[in-house]
Amino acid sequence: MGRWEPDARARLLRAALDLFCEQGYENTSVAQIAERAGLTKSTYFRHFRDKREVLFGGQDELLELVGSGIAGAPESAGPLAAVEAALVAMAVTFTPERWEIGTRRLSVINRTDELRERDALKMAGFRHAMRDSLRQRGVSELDADVAAELGVLALRRGYARWLEDGGDFAEVARRALGEIQVAAAELKGAEQL
Amino acid sequence: MGRWEPDARARLLRAALDLFCEQGYENTSVAQIAERAGLTKSTYFRHFRDKREVLFGGQDELLELVGSGIAGAPESAGPLAAVEAALVAMAVTFTPERWEIGTRRLSVINRTDELRERDALKMAGFRHAMRDSLRQRGVSELDADVAAELGVLALRRGYARWLEDGGDFAEVARRALGEIQVAAAELKGAEQL
Repeated sequence: MGRWEPDARARLLRAALDLFCEQGYENTSVAQIAERAGLTKSTYFRHFRDKREVLFGGQDELLELVGSGIAGAPESAGPLAAVEAALVAMAVTFTPERWEIGTRRLSVINRTDELRERDALKMAGFRHAMRDSLRQRGVSELDADVAAELGVLALRRGYARWLEDGGDFAEVARRALGEIQVAAAELKGAEQL
Repeated sequence: MGRWEPDARARLLRAALDLFCEQGYENTSVAQIAERAGLTKSTYFRHFRDKREVLFGGQDELLELVGSGIAGAPESAGPLAAVEAALVAMAVTFTPERWEIGTRRLSVINRTDELRERDALKMAGFRHAMRDSLRQRGVSELDADVAAELGVLALRRGYARWLEDGGDFAEVARRALGEIQVAAAELKGAEQL
């Protein structure tokens, strides 16, 4: 592939988003996506298992970044500091290209039950990856659960803010996690009931 | 329906679980489930939209209980106290019958991608319901997000513990939320990185 053209995955994703927005997710076929991207259906299936997955590419890479980010945090880092390291490690994938299509991608997902389910599972995958990596650092099961839950919230809130304002995802996610940490520590308690 | 027989929904769920465990989810049809339950396919479809939904019945009721639990919490209750009220309100659906089939239900779900996705979306539904109900009480957007996230974690941890040990779900969930609150307040901080 010449450097003058985006790679096949990116072309397929753009073509898919164009078609999903023009005619709806349900009404679009893999053959149409491939055609719009100027590629063949078999090229499509070399990259993505089915129609849905074009919107959810790159998850394996992200899960690896979560794992290596947490494993690579300093030994003295607490659970949330390790989660922060994961978010910072993920930032490398939050490129300007990804930003540009992000809003359209999210609006397609939110309009379609099947895609919202897939997205919910993706988030559950991040939660599991954070929790498992924290457990491997010797974090207690309860603390790992709580830190992973707050980490995924930071990812979700950070992503929404990044789509709005752009900028460096690492910074945005760091700020989101910081706010969440303060809020979690100060939440008015269960004992009040 | 006579009082000597369980209602159609429960019969269909039991039949479905039997078949899913015996021959796998993929290999089971709605017609087989209905037949095993001694009911017709059209009765099945009066109760559940598709094969999957037999495992996820009652979510609307639960979402309503979440909403009314949070809305009905005392005005002075903080966000986590309101979330606790939601968990306590949900307890009415955690019956001995539900307990009896819970472990099998969960193992079928965890074995099948499609069902795990559906389950992830169900949890996201609870999160949204908690967050929206908290917002209606005037809780800030950040606090509502954090409290809902911790509330869903309490639901998940409480449910797992309840399936293991049985007992009163309200008590189990309350304890789970209490632990989570303490852990969240004490998590070692992001500023350490």
